[in-house]
Amino acid sequence: MAYVNANYQKLAGAYLFREVDHRVTEFCDQNPSKKDKLLRCGIGDVTEPLVPAVVTAMHSAVDDQGRGSTFHGYGPPTGYPFLREAIAQHEFQDRGIDIDAQEIFVSDGSKGDCASILDILCHENRIAITDPVYPVYVDTNVMLGHTGSVGENGQYAGLTYLPATAENRFVPDIPSVPLDLIYLCYPNNPTGETITRAQLEAWVAYALDHEAIILYDVAYKDFIRDDSLPKSIYEIPGARQCAIEFHSFSKSGGFTGVRCGFTVCPKELTGKTVDGTKLVLHDMWNRRWSTKSNGVSYIVQRGAEALYSKAGQTQATAIIDKYLENGRLLRQGCESLGLTVYGAQHSPYVWAACPEGVSSWEMFDEMLNTHQIIVMPGSGFGSCGEGYIRISAFPSAEVVAEVVNRMSKISSNIA
Amino acid sequence: MAYVNANYQKLAGAYLFREVDHRVTEFCDQNPSKKDKLLRCGIGDVTEPLVPAVVTAMHSAVDDQGRGSTFHGYGPPTGYPFLREAIAQHEFQDRGIDIDAQEIFVSDGSKGDCASILDILCHENRIAITDPVYPVYVDTNVMLGHTGSVGENGQYAGLTYLPATAENRFVPDIPSVPLDLIYLCYPNNPTGETITRAQLEAWVAYALDHEAIILYDVAYKDFIRDDSLPKSIYEIPGARQCAIEFHSFSKSGGFTGVRCGFTVCPKELTGKTVDGTKLVLHDMWNRRWSTKSNGVSYIVQRGAEALYSKAGQTQATAIIDKYLENGRLLRQGCESLGLTVYGAQHSPYVWAACPEGVSSWEMFDEMLNTHQIIVMPGSGFGSCGEGYIRISAFPSAEVVAEVVNRMSKISSNIA
Repeated sequence: MAYVNANYQKLAGAYLFREVDHRVTEFCDQNPSKKDKLLRCGIGDVTEPLVPAVVTAMHSAVDDQGRGSTFHGYGPPTGYPFLREAIAQHEFQDRGIDIDAQEIFVSDGSKGDCASILDILCHENRIAITDPVYPVYVDTNVMLGHTGSVGENGQYAGLTYLPATAENRFVPDIPSVPLDLIYLCYPNNPTGETITRAQLEAWVAYALDHEAIILYDVAYKDFIRDDSLPKSIYEIPGARQCAIEFHSFSKSGGFTGVRCGFTVCPKELTGKTVDGTKLVLHDMWNRRWSTKSNGVSYIVQRGAEALYSKAGQTQATAIIDKYLENGRLLRQGCESLGLTVYGAQHSPYVWAACPEGVSSWEMFDEMLNTHQIIVMPGSGFGSCGEGYIRISAFPSAEVVAEVVNRMSKISSNIA
Repeated sequence: MAYVNANYQKLAGAYLFREVDHRVTEFCDQNPSKKDKLLRCGIGDVTEPLVPAVVTAMHSAVDDQGRGSTFHGYGPPTGYPFLREAIAQHEFQDRGIDIDAQEIFVSDGSKGDCASILDILCHENRIAITDPVYPVYVDTNVMLGHTGSVGENGQYAGLTYLPATAENRFVPDIPSVPLDLIYLCYPNNPTGETITRAQLEAWVAYALDHEAIILYDVAYKDFIRDDSLPKSIYEIPGARQCAIEFHSFSKSGGFTGVRCGFTVCPKELTGKTVDGTKLVLHDMWNRRWSTKSNGVSYIVQRGAEALYSKAGQTQATAIIDKYLENGRLLRQGCESLGLTVYGAQHSPYVWAACPEGVSSWEMFDEMLNTHQIIVMPGSGFGSCGEGYIRISAFPSAEVVAEVVNRMSKISSNIA
């Protein structure tokens, strides 16, 4: 009989989002009359449609594919030059950051990239994640056998968990132990807080010191409205020697259903094999893409390119502004409940502390069953997320207004 | 320093298509005046544009994404029901084959699927590939450490190579040794030949007997024009217990630049862990997709769905007919050179034996340098491909006519 990957057995229960879906479905089955009252602030999915610049570009690309003279077959596995160059210019060079188009690898989204980067790394690394954390970083390592079993606290043996708490304002302290791979995500999912330049400098210094690699996820960077805060780790000198960066058009361009993102892998970055041979990660990542992929849809890449046009940038920024306004209102709503609130100032997530003694799932159930507001239980993101809920600012302004309205009426019950 | 995957060092030289590109570029640099005379029959990339039914559907889907009321954010990781159901119905149920929509996993293409299926399998399997073979099956196993080093004959230690030669009409004999995973691709790339129902029955019987899994690639199935030949392994009783099937819209729908395909993973299929626990592959494959992917672009999935409309089917079939006519002419051209010719009757590839004593790369160089025709050297697909060239029937009718014209003039030189 064929052998299968035993590590899948280690995966703890269902994926967080599936458990949330399950409880919501159960509620709807038991309360059919309340189904229409549900307000969805759980999953971080955008709701605003694609901006006109993208729609126009994609129509044009569809037409290209329907004409013999402009038809595109197989594209370059790592992305068309037109998109890689637009990214390098607008995201980096125009901001004085030294990143070349050849260092951009276009993909169908950041979730896949966070998973597939592990293809070129290996079992021996000492891996650190923050707690709480985006579950994909953990589960993809579990599936590859980079961890032991899960403990009662939900933590896997073999991973180093870096607490991100209210005390350190959700940026972990620099570790006192040596680590090889460190996942960081700022602006952060789920806490909605971000990192300062000085804090990121300290992390880069640590990585250089320990020859570690930082896997830096900036899916929410376009929500930053303060120029003193870093939007890319490559703003920090030395980061080219110690960081791979993950970008997504999902939240910045409304591409959750379109699927496009990219990684940045600088040419200086090296790692070693178990026998000590130094290898260049850029070469390996190139080889990984040319062997395992035929690249991203031409139509999608033309859509992503349009986000860098003048019209595209103006239109996309206006939508992010809407989500930020949602976040501001949701923060106010939570404050009216007497909750301590974090996040949503440079990100689309409110991170609210539950009332004393109330667990994340209890608060989730209360919000769902009593108020028909779907949030995410903070504990689903890690043990340090216990006692918090995450509220997404991505719903429509109408939904957000109704959430705030219901919160204003229920404040006395909870607080 | 971070540890990297040492298996990448085992990969033998550049990927075949890159070496071909290199020689073509070199030729063009040295012969700029002949650059315009080049006829490209190397890589198996389609040249006909998307059919009108697909173009219309994709325009409509782009519009959906541009309106708030019809916008789609994150889709199901394994594909929208509208596409999974269309596939299950048209590819299987309408043809009396028992495959359910839940057993269809939509992806961005078959190359990625052939690679990522290894996520749920593991190191202990005895893996067999045909020789010659699509290089992706081999390289993805090398990268995961499922092989030893490459030998002088280009074969990796630890893999079982099943010779596919003119003697067995390019369908390997049933092995006398036990195997766990067997890659088969019919209609075949690169030989262009296909398998009979009786031969496929024998392979299914072998797999059931040894509790092995057949990884069955049918990327070219729509080129079959003889109803007695199998288009799916699930036409064979018992295959639900022993096969995963890989489908692609690349060649059947002209989707090489659009990117869509799917795998079929029946619910009965099981494998065992090293400690003997039986696991259901369908569950694992589901988990793999929900953890590592957010699915395929909504716009792309609507395009794929349109291939199953009445208009889409008629239009796509007409294009495949064109490519088959190209294949017929290219076979004639090769025969006029006195070459022994295989393939291209139920596939888009001509597989021609080089004249006695001429190697694949010698023939490649001769065709390029003297006649400006780009073909693929058969030896690039494995040691049993030595002495053959592969000629793609995907170029335009004009290019094919000129190839045949040049062949008719050069016959006396080569034969």
